[in-house]
Amino acid sequence: MTKKGLSKKERQERLKQILSDDPFLNDEELAEKFQVSIQTIRLDRMELKLPELRERIRSVARQNYSKVRSIDVKEIIGELVDLELDKRGISILETTQDMTFGKTRVIRGDIIFAQANSLAIAVIDANVALTGVANIKYKLPVYAGQKLVAKAEVTRVRGNKKFVFVRIFVKQKEVFRGKFILVSLDDEVKQ
Amino acid sequence: MTKKGLSKKERQERLKQILSDDPFLNDEELAEKFQVSIQTIRLDRMELKLPELRERIRSVARQNYSKVRSIDVKEIIGELVDLELDKRGISILETTQDMTFGKTRVIRGDIIFAQANSLAIAVIDANVALTGVANIKYKLPVYAGQKLVAKAEVTRVRGNKKFVFVRIFVKQKEVFRGKFILVSLDDEVKQ
Repeated sequence: MTKKGLSKKERQERLKQILSDDPFLNDEELAEKFQVSIQTIRLDRMELKLPELRERIRSVARQNYSKVRSIDVKEIIGELVDLELDKRGISILETTQDMTFGKTRVIRGDIIFAQANSLAIAVIDANVALTGVANIKYKLPVYAGQKLVAKAEVTRVRGNKKFVFVRIFVKQKEVFRGKFILVSLDDEVKQ
Repeated sequence: MTKKGLSKKERQERLKQILSDDPFLNDEELAEKFQVSIQTIRLDRMELKLPELRERIRSVARQNYSKVRSIDVKEIIGELVDLELDKRGISILETTQDMTFGKTRVIRGDIIFAQANSLAIAVIDANVALTGVANIKYKLPVYAGQKLVAKAEVTRVRGNKKFVFVRIFVKQKEVFRGKFILVSLDDEVKQ
């Protein structure tokens, strides 16, 4: 926890440090950490020439997209910020008002499913991977503006079936979890 | 089964009959039934002034949209052609190329999930319904152009939890099934 009462210089030093450890904190989360206003964080970032979250995510994501084999990267819902094929992957989705059910202000279940499903496919090391089974649980409602961090882990491989466990978090709180079984088709089959 | 060798007049009589029994057959399915070309079916429909599938679906769907309580009707993926609140519902989705994974020509899993999920919500008789759990299985790949008929049935009610079983068919073959548990919020809670 970062305590209030730091000088501006101390705060900016810590800000650089914190963002180098976790580049995916948004201004709201940083403001909470430092107990200052979001506006203060924005000014700090501008003075330090630290880009906004969206840009930081994209610059990391770019390095991962070349590794993906099983899906067109533009079909991944969210930005892929970490990827080790057949092992694990992380994607981040910044939710917006147009992803909600109009009636509830809650992010639509199919959007959250799409983030999890497309990440589960992206981690597969095969030319083609299709979802066979998914057992999913929505644990907490997600509201527009919240940042979804999805973490996928390949837990088992049986022939051409790969088991992927995906958990999605909002500020470290789990809001969704899903177990996916994907069927991968290798190079020969695709021809 | 309708056999070849009918006169044009006989075919058109049977066509009217068949479409009044099942208004949701598309031209391709009708052509198969009569063992004639799709073009022949189109000409028959024009002579008989029978609208194309999309129009037939919409005119039926219009009657159902006013019954829906739990979701904005424009958020339902597919057209709602049958609805009895807290009992059952049917929606039809005509798939298109832009719903596919570019790599595979197969309709994306999140699209099929969205049809099932939004139908499961629509059948609930409450002001608001949110998906809690879904256990789903993709049984056969679906290709662009195929018509998805989703059938939902409310199988159990436990307090504010409603269990909905959704099956999706392409030409009577089951391509997807899912068990959903929805949490409904009634009028008081919404205020």
